[in-house]
Amino acid sequence: MKAEIIAVGTEILLGQIDNTNTTFLAEELAGLGIEVYYQSVVGDNPKRLEEALELADQRSDLTVLCGGLGPTDDDLTKQVTAKHVGQELVTDEGGYQNLLVFFEKRERPMTENNRLQALVFKDGESLQNSNGLAVGIFYQTPTGNSYLLLPGPPNELKPMFFNEAIPLLQNHFQTDEQLISRVLRFYGIGESELVTKLADLIKHQSNPTIASYAKPNEVTLRLTVSTTDKNDGKQKLDQMEEVILDRVGDYFYGYGENNSLVEVVVELLKKQKKTVSAAESLTAGSFQAMLGSVSGVSEVFPGGFVTYSETTKEQLLNLDSKMLEKYGTVSKECAEAMAIQAKKLAHSDFALSFTGVAGPDSLEDQKAGTVWIGLATEEGVESYLYHFTRNRNYIRHSAVMTGLDLLRKKLIK
Amino acid sequence: MKAEIIAVGTEILLGQIDNTNTTFLAEELAGLGIEVYYQSVVGDNPKRLEEALELADQRSDLTVLCGGLGPTDDDLTKQVTAKHVGQELVTDEGGYQNLLVFFEKRERPMTENNRLQALVFKDGESLQNSNGLAVGIFYQTPTGNSYLLLPGPPNELKPMFFNEAIPLLQNHFQTDEQLISRVLRFYGIGESELVTKLADLIKHQSNPTIASYAKPNEVTLRLTVSTTDKNDGKQKLDQMEEVILDRVGDYFYGYGENNSLVEVVVELLKKQKKTVSAAESLTAGSFQAMLGSVSGVSEVFPGGFVTYSETTKEQLLNLDSKMLEKYGTVSKECAEAMAIQAKKLAHSDFALSFTGVAGPDSLEDQKAGTVWIGLATEEGVESYLYHFTRNRNYIRHSAVMTGLDLLRKKLIK
Repeated sequence: MKAEIIAVGTEILLGQIDNTNTTFLAEELAGLGIEVYYQSVVGDNPKRLEEALELADQRSDLTVLCGGLGPTDDDLTKQVTAKHVGQELVTDEGGYQNLLVFFEKRERPMTENNRLQALVFKDGESLQNSNGLAVGIFYQTPTGNSYLLLPGPPNELKPMFFNEAIPLLQNHFQTDEQLISRVLRFYGIGESELVTKLADLIKHQSNPTIASYAKPNEVTLRLTVSTTDKNDGKQKLDQMEEVILDRVGDYFYGYGENNSLVEVVVELLKKQKKTVSAAESLTAGSFQAMLGSVSGVSEVFPGGFVTYSETTKEQLLNLDSKMLEKYGTVSKECAEAMAIQAKKLAHSDFALSFTGVAGPDSLEDQKAGTVWIGLATEEGVESYLYHFTRNRNYIRHSAVMTGLDLLRKKLIK
Repeated sequence: MKAEIIAVGTEILLGQIDNTNTTFLAEELAGLGIEVYYQSVVGDNPKRLEEALELADQRSDLTVLCGGLGPTDDDLTKQVTAKHVGQELVTDEGGYQNLLVFFEKRERPMTENNRLQALVFKDGESLQNSNGLAVGIFYQTPTGNSYLLLPGPPNELKPMFFNEAIPLLQNHFQTDEQLISRVLRFYGIGESELVTKLADLIKHQSNPTIASYAKPNEVTLRLTVSTTDKNDGKQKLDQMEEVILDRVGDYFYGYGENNSLVEVVVELLKKQKKTVSAAESLTAGSFQAMLGSVSGVSEVFPGGFVTYSETTKEQLLNLDSKMLEKYGTVSKECAEAMAIQAKKLAHSDFALSFTGVAGPDSLEDQKAGTVWIGLATEEGVESYLYHFTRNRNYIRHSAVMTGLDLLRKKLIK
């Protein structure tokens, strides 16, 4: 089957925003075994969109359109595609209720143009939007051309794709075969190193397939098996997982697409009914802010300190000024004292400390990227020296992720 | 003039790499006054590339191709395009010398396939590669169709575009006109509201043109004037800026593409030799982490507190437990006490406090999005109530940005 992706939006055409939706969709469709042969972008222009649809009909079985489902005059993907395939637009009940609830909550009147977002094809299938207002559409013509219309904002498009589009596509384009995926998450190993360690598996992959994805400081592997029998598929995934973890299990921290190192750490803390605090210098609150991104973290995180200057290290954490003078703030001694004091003052079970050189300039004769991380536990305190690279923000982010992983390893011991 | 961009590469088609070249080229071409009407991606497949070229000939005057100029079997952009326009491939002397030098320096023999990278069109113009080996090509057919072939690696494509392609394009497509841009940055107004307030200007824009760009919690406007006289251009930009700021100047905070609200605030603090601290509840360190993202912030930011739980509000900030019991932590009283104590304990000139409901659940019977921000100054303390919307992280981000803007307004008073 041949698929193509058409992103609609003048702002993409002019290079004002990155076309990340197309990259996302291409990768996901490939994961479903649907091959993308063409990608294109057209502006908010009905004539050119119509031309793009005509071209797509000639060369592709499935056309995925993203963008242009909103309420303004610019948004015309639905209207143009409906006309192109001869479909009447009707109001989707679920989408309309969603609209009403949205405006009621905000105590704002719903302007007429918003209704457009609930319009769908008369003979199509609707895809509900869990994170916005525009309803998505799937439609297959009697002659077998299929169209999938998705909203432009990535935070709407992605959940709609995962929750609504994947089952639909599997339903329409798969035989008895179904695809089962499993995502393995790794921290502390680069993508190229991971891929090198699994080179033979990746080279000879067929079923399951193995795809790697790199994010800052993280790599995920997605294993996908095509099978007619769920149990058989699960077994194949188990076997492949075992072979992979046998080689790189030290870096494995969790499963699933919607997961992250911080969520795994918060979950472990909750299960063990433990709390964590922090004293942050170069990270300036980033570690605690990341904890704060997890809903329900208040159970395990009471709070902590940002001690950016030497003075606040003394004043807020009661660190000994003579110790700081002797060893400097970028030191094992300072990191350990920070962690001990944060644990004590915030009455937590664990406390992490971060002190180092975010850069670009050196500090206390130590190069940018030099970072000490301390970890205070009920048994005592430990500390580790790192040399991170790249720019200021990458160094700070690396420190935060490393701190999370230190805590995770302590929790699973 | 109509232009289109064709990115060549199977790895883009499969979503394995982001198509950043197209975004870059689209934005740069727009800056040169060359309008991009279509973008597309084709894999490393001669037949589909030939089809894309045929289509481009029908609808565009200039076709910019990127990728596929390398030495391997996959790289076929040059060969397919040469055949398409009936051009013979010949060796470019500069490109060939570049190859020889490259392999001599590395003391490695040059394999035969590398010569391909120095091949150019017999009647075209060559674009030298300052950062790699593949030579770029510009060619105009007798009937007026133009082709620009650029290498795929962004670190080769960008310098070649700036140093070699821009003069060529200006030479072929421009008169004496040059484009001068100015970026205005706004905070606290949504893109749709800003655009509505400037609707007549935007509708009748011609020279300068006005383009708006939305980012989370921020909007920028880029004014671009086309002129043969720099001073005249600057004057036109000044006049347009004056008209715009007359209407929405309350939200204007700075100039330039590489700028941000936090950088403006840190700059103001530095100039006035003032310091800021913070006590953060729902934002959990995000405000301080954002300050920490600015290099050199240590001059103006000593540190502060993350007081996520009620207990840490009492223990770390010495807040009165009776006051907290009476008013709750999501209250004017709590926000003001937090700011006052943070200022006092961190010995800073200003302190901000953030307390509220990040969600998704309610807290103390207050809805997610309810946020109090306190600002302690040398004159006293003030506090403000907000109702932010969307999800947990957007609410936290909105609070941080609003806090920055409160401080900025205080500093410019």
